Amino acid sequence: MQYHLNGFRPGDPEVCDAAPGRDRQGPLPETLDVLIVGCGPAGLTLAAQLSAFPEITTRIVERLEGPLEKGQADGISCRSMEMFEAFGFAEKVLKQSYWVNETTFWTPDPKNPDQILRNSRIWDVEEGLSEMPHVILNQARVHDMFLGVMRNSPSRLTPDYGLKVVDLTVDTEADDHPVTVILEHTDPARAGERRDVRARYVVGCDGARSSVRRAIGRELRGDSANQAWGVMDVLVETDFPDIRRKSLIQSANEGSIVIIPREGGYLARFYIELDQLDPGERVAGRNITLDRLIAAAQRILAPYSFEVKETAWWSVYEIGQRLTDKFDDVPEGDGNRLPRVFIAGDACHTHSPKAGQGMNVSMGDAFNLGWKLASVLKGLSPPEILPSYSAERQSIAQDLIAFDREWAQIMSERPKPASGTPGEAPKFQRYFIEHGRNTAGMSVTYAPSALIGEASSQDAAAGFELGARFHSAPVLRLADAKRVELGHVVKADLRWRLFAFAPEGDPTATGSALSHLCDFLSRDPSSPILRHTPKGADIDAVIDLRAILQVPHTAIDLPSLPELLRPRKGRLGLVDHEKVFCSLPGDEPDIFDRRGIDRVQGALVVVRSDQHVALVSSFGDHAALARFFDGCLSR
Amino acid sequence: MQYHLNGFRPGDPEVCDAAPGRDRQGPLPETLDVLIVGCGPAGLTLAAQLSAFPEITTRIVERLEGPLEKGQADGISCRSMEMFEAFGFAEKVLKQSYWVNETTFWTPDPKNPDQILRNSRIWDVEEGLSEMPHVILNQARVHDMFLGVMRNSPSRLTPDYGLKVVDLTVDTEADDHPVTVILEHTDPARAGERRDVRARYVVGCDGARSSVRRAIGRELRGDSANQAWGVMDVLVETDFPDIRRKSLIQSANEGSIVIIPREGGYLARFYIELDQLDPGERVAGRNITLDRLIAAAQRILAPYSFEVKETAWWSVYEIGQRLTDKFDDVPEGDGNRLPRVFIAGDACHTHSPKAGQGMNVSMGDAFNLGWKLASVLKGLSPPEILPSYSAERQSIAQDLIAFDREWAQIMSERPKPASGTPGEAPKFQRYFIEHGRNTAGMSVTYAPSALIGEASSQDAAAGFELGARFHSAPVLRLADAKRVELGHVVKADLRWRLFAFAPEGDPTATGSALSHLCDFLSRDPSSPILRHTPKGADIDAVIDLRAILQVPHTAIDLPSLPELLRPRKGRLGLVDHEKVFCSLPGDEPDIFDRRGIDRVQGALVVVRSDQHVALVSSFGDHAALARFFDGCLSR
Ligand SMILES: Cc1cc2nc3c(=O)[nH]c(=O)nc-3n(C[C@H](O)[C@H](O)[C@H](O)COP(=O)(O)OP(=O)(O)OC[C@H]3O[C@@H](n4cnc5c(N)ncnc54)[C@H](O)[C@@H]3O)c2cc1C
Ligand SMILES: Cc1cc2nc3c(=O)[nH]c(=O)nc-3n(C[C@H](O)[C@H](O)[C@H](O)COP(=O)(O)OP(=O)(O)OC[C@H]3O[C@@H](n4cnc5c(N)ncnc54)[C@H](O)[C@@H]3O)c2cc1C
Repeated sequence: MQYHLNGFRPGDPEVCDAAPGRDRQGPLPETLDVLIVGCGPAGLTLAAQLSAFPEITTRIVERLEGPLEKGQADGISCRSMEMFEAFGFAEKVLKQSYWVNETTFWTPDPKNPDQILRNSRIWDVEEGLSEMPHVILNQARVHDMFLGVMRNSPSRLTPDYGLKVVDLTVDTEADDHPVTVILEHTDPARAGERRDVRARYVVGCDGARSSVRRAIGRELRGDSANQAWGVMDVLVETDFPDIRRKSLIQSANEGSIVIIPREGGYLARFYIELDQLDPGERVAGRNITLDRLIAAAQRILAPYSFEVKETAWWSVYEIGQRLTDKFDDVPEGDGNRLPRVFIAGDACHTHSPKAGQGMNVSMGDAFNLGWKLASVLKGLSPPEILPSYSAERQSIAQDLIAFDREWAQIMSERPKPASGTPGEAPKFQRYFIEHGRNTAGMSVTYAPSALIGEASSQDAAAGFELGARFHSAPVLRLADAKRVELGHVVKADLRWRLFAFAPEGDPTATGSALSHLCDFLSRDPSSPILRHTPKGADIDAVIDLRAILQVPHTAIDLPSLPELLRPRKGRLGLVDHEKVFCSLPGDEPDIFDRRGIDRVQGALVVVRSDQHVALVSSFGDHAALARFFDGCLSR
Repeated sequence: MQYHLNGFRPGDPEVCDAAPGRDRQGPLPETLDVLIVGCGPAGLTLAAQLSAFPEITTRIVERLEGPLEKGQADGISCRSMEMFEAFGFAEKVLKQSYWVNETTFWTPDPKNPDQILRNSRIWDVEEGLSEMPHVILNQARVHDMFLGVMRNSPSRLTPDYGLKVVDLTVDTEADDHPVTVILEHTDPARAGERRDVRARYVVGCDGARSSVRRAIGRELRGDSANQAWGVMDVLVETDFPDIRRKSLIQSANEGSIVIIPREGGYLARFYIELDQLDPGERVAGRNITLDRLIAAAQRILAPYSFEVKETAWWSVYEIGQRLTDKFDDVPEGDGNRLPRVFIAGDACHTHSPKAGQGMNVSMGDAFNLGWKLASVLKGLSPPEILPSYSAERQSIAQDLIAFDREWAQIMSERPKPASGTPGEAPKFQRYFIEHGRNTAGMSVTYAPSALIGEASSQDAAAGFELGARFHSAPVLRLADAKRVELGHVVKADLRWRLFAFAPEGDPTATGSALSHLCDFLSRDPSSPILRHTPKGADIDAVIDLRAILQVPHTAIDLPSLPELLRPRKGRLGLVDHEKVFCSLPGDEPDIFDRRGIDRVQGALVVVRSDQHVALVSSFGDHAALARFFDGCLSR
């Protein structure tokens, strides 16, 4: 953590000073920059991101009277953990959550098919996939983390509870605040009371029955698997040996269960397969009770005992994967308009819960949109980047829904009669392993656009796949010899990271490729840093250059490197010492080895604020850099 | 973290429910169990520990009007970090602090003795010494962490600011609340206003000028090195290359500097050698200014530039090491009385700041005392254990002061004229390396007593030195296959940990040594668990058994182990799944290898709540266990 840049300030560095006049959030204004609708994972991710910028007037409304307390989703993918790191609360989630280390697979005992038997176990996450584990924590707690970020931000943003969006209209002719939103109070005392607000942008994060989606005339389309499932968060007594491991269980005739151990060491979630529904039938009509869930679990888990001591939460649902064709208000093919209304999360796509996608994909949507909206509103990027949100996320949602559908189906299939081949992996296990990258959130890769360069120079750094998330690796920080994860410098702060992986040779030599690069960036009129950094802002305010050297940290001193790598910043002009990294000491493979970076030529890697790789180029291709940033940043 | 044992509870698991009637701390009562005097590191460590037990009435008074904001100590040893882990806030300190990775040594340039030159650098902490790093964080922030623990505890303890202790008396005849304390308000509006409180115990954590110490008739004795030093926390501009590394600098003729980089990436602390004082002279008389500190730093750092942009805090002091002969109110040799008043921290010993002991040793005092006091007040241990506080800590303080004195002297010595032998380590470097274990807080070893067993069976687990702190190592938790640090199960919760390192062989076999041990502990009339656990309490409430197995976690299931290793707890009788650990997968050395545990015979290791090893015995010596606990626990 870097702080005290503008002078020593006592107190918790994670609590920002309130911006002038923002100590307390006043009543909802008539006009604002961004109105977020809904306090689910999508809305809160977005709100947390925007709350860092008090110059942007953001508010978030929620129809309920207060924050969620329990239930709903609980799976946090490795990828979401990486995002939490960018928001500054990963360490808290790591501490409080259950870590999914091992996953076990149970199938009918070939000798006694009425009973289940552990077929096999695997490590849940492929080695090296992420520096973060896959964890489980109540969605309500995730909400709390984001609410904490908002509360401690300079805008002191808090939700306006008890307000629901009834309708909205976009005046495509209006220059300012073109979206008019009709809000209605939901608390019984004021029920029916309405008011308008006008916003520059509105983001509907209002879940599967989204009013915002309806207002912009979009629909969730898809099909239902006509299969009812139950879910319960319970404190149980059982002799099932894997109650603290994620377990996928297929019985011969009683259906399937997924067990997700939960935070705190005692609680566990059970997903239980229930009835086949008739086409078009809704599960609500069946009046399924908690007792039925428990009885089904008892049958499936035989020969193990299973008794529920306390139920924290339970629900029943039908599996259905649905998707909206576009995630903003601009009609397909209308090239003249830019979007003003967006939808995110369950408002645009719904999943079956068991692949653990709902919360993760919803936060992913918001993380994709947040920096774009903020960059446009701060004048750093032109509004032309906004259509990329729907373009990037809709196709991801499509892929994930396809995966989810297949997975839900496989989980509901009856296991084949025992083949008798001992150790043969059942189908659900093979599928689980094959798709580990999907489940971990790592398969999200954006196609080339103004915000993602062409893959022509991918060879310079094969391990940083263009459009995919930046895959962190450990490095040693030159100034203080601290071992750090390079990926953790990418924060949810709008800035672009330019990672300069220096070629072999002495980086301090005059004429080195590194000094050429710094010369270009600090002096050339086409330098993206010079062109796109607002006057008076710190030199790294928009594009944050970091150098990674192949030399050991003992070989050089920071003052011998170009000034751009030890920039003066803030009110006092203090040197930022955290721009340069070296190889690890000892004989661990370094980041060049781990990520396939060309040692001879070096590589430049540009990373967006949502941690996705935007550009990979050869080290000397300064023009490519300039071109790329000209395409997505304002002058 | 374990939570939800007594049923699901929404909200932050780190915020405990307030005990009945404790939502808000009322006015200071007339009588109480423990009165802590002073909100420094010692007082707050103790208050944080006691606040976990709302049945003990604890209050803490502080003469100042509010919490510290800056200055004073900043070094946090590895050992203190281990303690912070037991209090549950290590991850926050890890995030916000500066990590001391490398230490560099600077001496006069042999070619140009007016200028300094980097002589060498070393890793600050010896590899494997602790799972925790040595870090630097403002003392005020450490205070905040403890204040947070107190605020979130079931007693919602907060300091009573603006109250100072004027005097106290102990009525050795009184049965109850024998200590009468006279308090005086310090805020100008109520200045001079006095009141009494009566307490069972009083702990003077009121610093070097302790009123409590004076009231019990003890004195700080020792000598002064007659050397003035200055200290300043500054934001600087410099081309000194090691400004972000801990640096020990000896100039030829201008004196010494120690640079301690600070949290946040910009701030740094400078300790600067100033004037030789006359015998008995106080530094205050010299009217040393900040400008003098800066000018001295500039001279010592030549040829490097050095300009102060902002000073957060500064001070001057004379080096002096002083010590009190006993840390409680019982006169030496008075075997009939038990202590009622204790002193801790700077009230009993003062150090030179540069060895970084002040805050660490003070917290160490309180951590030693806290669990003893609480155990006595909860009726778990007889009051006869209380004299061990002074016995254990006074001799530690003696050792540390000897170390500190030597170290301060070496830092003030003029470097020898350059020997010309290149690479020859200067004396201060050799001393620094030799005493790394002291600085890290690892040399604290308590002598045998009722609370520390005899070393006769040390060979069973050579790496867990009797009386020293339990040296953690990684293990794999059986139930959920999570890699954890075994030492992190030792929390600041009064409980004793009994680590059972099982001998080779199948631990689940009938007749295995592990099942014998569990039989003894759960059924034998001399079982310390049966004898010392209060009726109705969880079976692990006083002695918390943990088994560490040599088999891989895939070889056994928890339900096949004795019931004592999967005890039912809490209101609902839920199984605690976190009692059993296995060797790590892969070919890393396991904890048996790392800590020299006898693989054939196994070992039992008892650890106190302050993380010190109390007993090492052979696995089958059940009688030794029973004897040991009989000596320190009540029936
Ligand atoms: C009952 C339930 C159970 C679930 N169970 C699971 C599960 O077991 N496993 C799993 O992985 N996922 C589960 N999910 C799905 C998961 O919670 C979602 O995928 C995830 O929350 C989506 O996040 P979101 O932010 O897009 O929408 P949501 O979390 O649905 O948030 C939408 C928010 O908008 C508010 N809102 C709605 N309409 C309006 C309006 N007009 N005006 C103002 N506010 C409005 C809602 O009150 C809500 O707070 C469940 C969801 C629900 C609702
Ligand atoms: C000005 C100053 C500068 C220091 N600088 C350094 C440094 O640079 N490096 C370093 O390592 N260490 C430094 N120290 C030492 C370090 O802060 C101490 O070793 C450490 O704080 C000791 O902790 P403690 O809890 O024992 O006592 P303290 O931290 O001294 O706390 C004692 C508390 O008791 C209060 N108090 C005193 N008398 C009474 C009374 N009669 N009634 C009620 N309350 C009372 C005081 O106000 C104070 O808050 C410094 C100390 C001081 C005072």
